[in-house]
Amino acid sequence: MNFESLRAALPAGDTLDRLHADMERARLVPTWKYVADFVSREPLVSYRPWLWKWDAVLHHLLRAGELITPERGAERRSMEHTNPDLRSGFSTSHTLATAVQLVKAGERAPAHRHMAAAIRFAARSEGGDVFTTVEGEPLRMLQNDLLLTPSGTWHEHVNSTGHDIVWLDALDFPLVNLLQASWFEPGEPGVAVPREEGYSQTILGAMRPTDWLPYPDHHPVVRYPWSEMRAALERLRGAAGSPYDDILLAYVNPRNGGPTLPTIGCHAQLLRPGKATQSHRQMCSTVYYVIEGAGHSVIEGQRFDWAEGDVFVVPNWRWHEHASAMGRDAILFSVSDEPVMRALGMYREQAFAGPSGRQEITAVFDPV
Amino acid sequence: MNFESLRAALPAGDTLDRLHADMERARLVPTWKYVADFVSREPLVSYRPWLWKWDAVLHHLLRAGELITPERGAERRSMEHTNPDLRSGFSTSHTLATAVQLVKAGERAPAHRHMAAAIRFAARSEGGDVFTTVEGEPLRMLQNDLLLTPSGTWHEHVNSTGHDIVWLDALDFPLVNLLQASWFEPGEPGVAVPREEGYSQTILGAMRPTDWLPYPDHHPVVRYPWSEMRAALERLRGAAGSPYDDILLAYVNPRNGGPTLPTIGCHAQLLRPGKATQSHRQMCSTVYYVIEGAGHSVIEGQRFDWAEGDVFVVPNWRWHEHASAMGRDAILFSVSDEPVMRALGMYREQAFAGPSGRQEITAVFDPV
Amino acid sequence: MNFESLRAALPAGDTLDRLHADMERARLVPTWKYVADFVSREPLVSYRPWLWKWDAVLHHLLRAGELITPERGAERRSMEHTNPDLRSGFSTSHTLATAVQLVKAGERAPAHRHMAAAIRFAARSEGGDVFTTVEGEPLRMLQNDLLLTPSGTWHEHVNSTGHDIVWLDALDFPLVNLLQASWFEPGEPGVAVPREEGYSQTILGAMRPTDWLPYPDHHPVVRYPWSEMRAALERLRGAAGSPYDDILLAYVNPRNGGPTLPTIGCHAQLLRPGKATQSHRQMCSTVYYVIEGAGHSVIEGQRFDWAEGDVFVVPNWRWHEHASAMGRDAILFSVSDEPVMRALGMYREQAFAGPSGRQEITAVFDPV
Amino acid sequence: MNFESLRAALPAGDTLDRLHADMERARLVPTWKYVADFVSREPLVSYRPWLWKWDAVLHHLLRAGELITPERGAERRSMEHTNPDLRSGFSTSHTLATAVQLVKAGERAPAHRHMAAAIRFAARSEGGDVFTTVEGEPLRMLQNDLLLTPSGTWHEHVNSTGHDIVWLDALDFPLVNLLQASWFEPGEPGVAVPREEGYSQTILGAMRPTDWLPYPDHHPVVRYPWSEMRAALERLRGAAGSPYDDILLAYVNPRNGGPTLPTIGCHAQLLRPGKATQSHRQMCSTVYYVIEGAGHSVIEGQRFDWAEGDVFVVPNWRWHEHASAMGRDAILFSVSDEPVMRALGMYREQAFAGPSGRQEITAVFDPV
Repeated sequence: MNFESLRAALPAGDTLDRLHADMERARLVPTWKYVADFVSREPLVSYRPWLWKWDAVLHHLLRAGELITPERGAERRSMEHTNPDLRSGFSTSHTLATAVQLVKAGERAPAHRHMAAAIRFAARSEGGDVFTTVEGEPLRMLQNDLLLTPSGTWHEHVNSTGHDIVWLDALDFPLVNLLQASWFEPGEPGVAVPREEGYSQTILGAMRPTDWLPYPDHHPVVRYPWSEMRAALERLRGAAGSPYDDILLAYVNPRNGGPTLPTIGCHAQLLRPGKATQSHRQMCSTVYYVIEGAGHSVIEGQRFDWAEGDVFVVPNWRWHEHASAMGRDAILFSVSDEPVMRALGMYREQAFAGPSGRQEITAVFDPV
Repeated sequence: MNFESLRAALPAGDTLDRLHADMERARLVPTWKYVADFVSREPLVSYRPWLWKWDAVLHHLLRAGELITPERGAERRSMEHTNPDLRSGFSTSHTLATAVQLVKAGERAPAHRHMAAAIRFAARSEGGDVFTTVEGEPLRMLQNDLLLTPSGTWHEHVNSTGHDIVWLDALDFPLVNLLQASWFEPGEPGVAVPREEGYSQTILGAMRPTDWLPYPDHHPVVRYPWSEMRAALERLRGAAGSPYDDILLAYVNPRNGGPTLPTIGCHAQLLRPGKATQSHRQMCSTVYYVIEGAGHSVIEGQRFDWAEGDVFVVPNWRWHEHASAMGRDAILFSVSDEPVMRALGMYREQAFAGPSGRQEITAVFDPV
Repeated sequence: MNFESLRAALPAGDTLDRLHADMERARLVPTWKYVADFVSREPLVSYRPWLWKWDAVLHHLLRAGELITPERGAERRSMEHTNPDLRSGFSTSHTLATAVQLVKAGERAPAHRHMAAAIRFAARSEGGDVFTTVEGEPLRMLQNDLLLTPSGTWHEHVNSTGHDIVWLDALDFPLVNLLQASWFEPGEPGVAVPREEGYSQTILGAMRPTDWLPYPDHHPVVRYPWSEMRAALERLRGAAGSPYDDILLAYVNPRNGGPTLPTIGCHAQLLRPGKATQSHRQMCSTVYYVIEGAGHSVIEGQRFDWAEGDVFVVPNWRWHEHASAMGRDAILFSVSDEPVMRALGMYREQAFAGPSGRQEITAVFDPV
Repeated sequence: MNFESLRAALPAGDTLDRLHADMERARLVPTWKYVADFVSREPLVSYRPWLWKWDAVLHHLLRAGELITPERGAERRSMEHTNPDLRSGFSTSHTLATAVQLVKAGERAPAHRHMAAAIRFAARSEGGDVFTTVEGEPLRMLQNDLLLTPSGTWHEHVNSTGHDIVWLDALDFPLVNLLQASWFEPGEPGVAVPREEGYSQTILGAMRPTDWLPYPDHHPVVRYPWSEMRAALERLRGAAGSPYDDILLAYVNPRNGGPTLPTIGCHAQLLRPGKATQSHRQMCSTVYYVIEGAGHSVIEGQRFDWAEGDVFVVPNWRWHEHASAMGRDAILFSVSDEPVMRALGMYREQAFAGPSGRQEITAVFDPV
C-alpha cells in the first residue's frame, strides 16, 4: 500500500474545480457530480409509441415492387418501420426492428446468415410453393404462418409461385447493434445441408427420435402453422383470459417450453368482440401487427386506432391497454424483447392503479 | 387483400427519388438503400482499449478524500474509469462501468437499490469491521474479497474501523441504460430484514437447509473470500491451464454453477511467472484489475504494460493476449459481460491464426 | 471413544464360529462371508423372456366378456400378462405389468387414483365416443392412440359407443410394490374438476398460454394420436435409423422433451420390410406389442416369432435384436423402465460383439 | 380385427372356473380376482423399525478385528445392520444397507467398482493419513467426515496411520438388487488416473475452472468435512428449524444443489437440548446414526432410546418423531432413499394429526 507516499504528495490549496479538471484529463469521472446522469430514478425511454397504417405501407411497397428490380436489389425490397425518434438506428423500438417485404412471383433471395435473429410472419400469402429455407430445411409460408430464423442460421427465400407474397420481418438487429455484436456472411446456394420439408417437426414433435438422430447445435428452426394457432385461440374462447391481453398465447420453443427465440418473444392474442382490457406496463417493448378485426390501444393516455394490417409499437415501461370493436374478433400478432429482459433478470411488470384499471384518454394519434 | 385497388392507385411516372421522399414522410426506411448501415459485416466497436494507472487513480482519490466531505456527498466518493470514447455514457466498456471508491474511517452510505447489478472488490482493506450490507446481511470486506449486489437488492456500506478502505466497483448500468431500464430507489436504514453475518454461506453452502428455510427470491447475495480463491489458484499451479488465460477460475453461482451474476461474470487468473498466452477474441468486453505482479497485454497490436492496481479494458471482439513478468506471479481479477452474450445466444470466440498464436506489437499505449 | 474398555472385555479363546453366531443374534451379518450374495458380478435376472399370442389372449378376453358382468366387476375385465417367473408379483417384467382390457358398449369404470402410473394403448377401437377421463379431461381413444394416466391422477373410463373396445394397459405397479409405496383411493364421479376435450393440447402445444392459465401440478396428462405417430414414422422412412431398432421414436413429455412418464418410457418403431437389426442389451426391461406386420426377435439366443397383436417381454440386460418379415412393414409399440434407470444413474447399454452383431439362434420359443 | 371369428369359436357352457384355469395355463391372470393383491390401499411395508446399540456393534467389530486377518478377507471386515425382516436381502431398509467397518493400522483394500453407490461416514478416526481413494483422488477421513463413492466409480481404502479406524458404510445395493441391476468389477492398483488431494474441491468449489479443465462424466466425488457441517449447524442454532427435524441440513450436490447422490440423500441434524419434534411420515426410508448426545425417537408408537454411536432405521411411510435429552445437544447423521422417490415422482409426506402433533407411546423397543 502506497497510501502514505501518495498522501505526502497531495497538492496544497487543492480545490474541487482543480480536482475535476485533473480527473477529466485522467479519464476519471466524479460519481458525486454525475451519478444522477447515469443512474436514473425511472427508465429514460428515448422514443414514442407510433403506428403505421397498412394501406400506406402497402402503397409504398407496391411502388417499390415496380421500381426495385433484381438489378436494384430486389432481394432487399423491404421497408423498415422506423420510429421517428430512432431514425439513426433504423429501428421500431430500441431493441427491435420490423419491416414489410414484397417478394414477387419467381424471385429468390440468396443464402446468407447473420448474428441478428429474425422471424417472418406471412402477412399476405396465397399459399403454394413459397419457402424460406433455414439451415437447408424449406419452411412453407402459408397465410399468417410464423417462421424462425435463429441467430447464425443460413437462410434464403424462394417464391416459386405465380403470385406475389408480402411478409412481416422482425429482427433484433437494434439489440445486436447496442451490444456491438453484428456480423454478416453471404453464402453460396447449397451452403447448408439440404433437409426435407417437415424435418424440424420430426425432431421437435411430441414423438421424436432421441438417441440416433443428432439434434442440431443451434436454437430450433421452427415453422408454426397459423391453422394450429387459430385453433388454439378458438379452443380458449371460453376461458377467463388475461386481464391485460384477453386470450394470449405464446409461440414456445418446443424443446423446453421457453421463449420463441432467446431475443424475440412472439405471441398471438384474441380480443373477443367488444373487449376492453386493463392497463399495465412491462419492462419490455412490443411491436404489434393486426391480423384481423379493428380496435384501439391506449398508450400513455394516447389512443391509437387500428385495423387489419396496421403495425404499432409500445415502448418499454409504457402504460398500455387494448380494446376490440364491438361485434367482431380482433386478433393481434406481436413480437417483444421480453425474453431478453427475463434472461438478464431485469423483467418487471406493474398493474395500472385506479378503480377502472384503465387510463384516461387525453390524445388521439395522428401520424400526419 | 386490397392489392388490386392499391395497385390501380399507383402514381404514374414514379421515380425512386420520389418513393424515397414519400417513404421518409411515412416513417418507412428503404432496406435496399441502408441495409449495410444496420447490419454490418463485422462488429462495429465504438471504443478503444484503455488503461488507468493505479497511482494516478489513487492520487485523485486521496484528493477527493480531502475535498468530498459528507456534506458534499462523501457516500459517492467514487471515480468512474471512463473510456475516452464513451464519455457521454460514463462507461468503461459499452456495457460495463468500473470505478474506485474511497470510504473513510467511520463513514457510511445509506441504503438504496437499483436495477443495475454491482460487484465490489476490496482492493485496499486492512480488515476489521468493514461491511457492505446486502439485503440485510453484512458482508465483510477483507483484502481482495469479492461481494455481490444483485439487481434490485437493498445495500448500504459501513466502515466502522479506524482506517480508510478503497474498493473497486463494477456495475452494468451502461447495459441497463442501453436497454432503457434504469430505476433507483432510496431506502431508510433497516429497510431490509436484518440477517446474521454468514447467512448466505448457510443457505448456499454444500450443506444447506432445503425445505424449511425459505430461499430468497432474487439472485444470490454472495461473499467470495479471497483466501479461498487464492488457495484454489494455488492448487491448480501444476495444471495445463487455458492457452489464452493460463490458470483461470470463475466465481460461480453456488446455486447452479452458472455465472457470477446474470449480467456480470467475474474471474481471477494466475499468470505463472514468465507466461505469455496466445491471442483470441471474444464476443464480450472485459475490464481487468491487477491484483499483484506485473506484465503486459497486447490488444489489437497495441501493448499495455500493467502493474499492481492498474485497470484496463479489452473491448468486445478485440484480439488480446497476456504476459506476466519473469520471476513472479501475476494475478488478475476481471469482470465481463460474457453472461449477457451467452444468455442471448450471441457469444462467439475465435483463436488468433498464425504460427505463434500471438500478435505482432505495433504500438505501445501511452495515456498522455 | 470407548475402544479400550471394550477391547479389555473381549472374550478369551474367541472363534469365528462363535463370532458369527453372536452376530446373528445381534442382527449383524458378516460382510466377509456373504458379500458375493448381495453384490453380484453380473445382474441376477430372476425371470425369462416370454410371449403371448394375440388370438389366445383375445379368446380369453371374449370369454370374460360373457362371464364378467357388471355385478362381477366388469370394470376390472382385464388380464395381466404374467411372466411365469413372476407369478407372485403378477407382473410381466420385474418393474412393469401389462394387461389387456375389454370394455363393452355402454360400460363405464368409476373414478379412482393410485400411486401406480399407467398408460393405455387403444389396441382395438372403432372410434367414436370412447374416453378415458384423466383429471377431468376426456381423452378420446381412437385406434392405436396412446393415453397417459400419471401417478396420482383421477381417472375413469366411459364407452358411450355401440361397440366394444380393447386396450392395452401398462402400469408400474411392480416397481411401486418393490418400493413398498402403493396406495389407492376410490372417488365419486366428478371428483376431478371437469375440463374440455383438448385441454392438455391447449396448455402443452407449441402455442400455449404461459402466464395467465395455471399449469397443473402433476406430470402432464397427454393423449398422443396415432395419426401423428404414424406420420412421423413415415417421414423418417428414408433415414439411417438406429442399428438396434431401425426407425425408433419416443413419445416425449411435451413440457421438457423428457420421457413419457417418470417411470414408463413409451416408443413406437418401424422395422422396414426385411430389416434385421443388430443385438444389444440395456439396463432396462421392455414389453413390446405388435401393432402391425410380423417378424421375430432373438432374445438370449432364443427366437420369438411374432405377428399382429402379440405381446412379448425382454428382461433387463438380455441380448435382443429384431427382424421384420420380407415385403412388409412391422410396427412395434413398447414400454420400458428406462426412465427409472436413467433417473437413478443406473442405465447402461452394450453392443453385441462379433462380426455380424447378431446372435446365434439356439432355440425357438414355444409357450406350450 | 378377428373378433367375429374368435367369438364364433367361444366354448359353450363356459364357467368362470374353467376360464380361470385356462387363463392360468396361458400365463394370464384375472385382474378382477387379484387386483387388491397388487394394488394395495396403503403401502405394504414388509419390515419393522430396529435399533443397534453402538457398544454391541463395536464389541463384535473388535472381535472381528482379531479374527479376520488379511488372509481371511480383512478388506471386508464389515458388519451389515441387517433388519430381522430383511435377512434374505441383507439389508437395513428395503432399499438401503448400512454397515460398520474396521480398518486396522496399515491395512488397505484393493480397488474395485460396482453399480451400487456408497457413502462412508468416518465414525471413529483419530485423523492423519486415512484415505478412501475415489476415481484416483484421495479423500481424507477425519472424524465424522462424509465421503461419496458414486455408482460405478473406482475406489480403494488405505489406512497409513498407526491407529485403527471405524467408519459407517451406507449402500443402495438393496435397491440395485430390487432393480436386478448389480454388477461388480475388481481393479488393479492404479486403475484410475491419479489425482491430487483436493481435486474435487477445486472443480466443484464456488471458484472453479469452467472451460479449460474437463469435468468428469460421473456424479461428483465429494468429501464433506465435518468441521464445515458442524459450523453450519451452529450458525443456525437460533433459527426456527423444521417442526419434524429441528435444525436439518442436507449434504447437497455442489454442481446443482440436488441430492447427495441420485439414490442416497444424506443429512445431519441438530436437535437442540430438550427438543421434542412433531410426527410425520414420508414415502422414504431413513437410517440414522447418532453422532453425539442422547434422546429417543417414537416410530409407530414404539419408543427407541438412543445414544452416541447407535444406528436405527425408520421404514417407509411410518410415523416418526425425535426428542433430545435435556441439557445437551443431540446430533444425528442420516441416509435415506428420498432422492429415489422424488426422482420417480412418488415422494409424499404427511403430518400427524392431533392436537400435540405427537404420537402416544405404546411400547419401548428392546432388541433382546
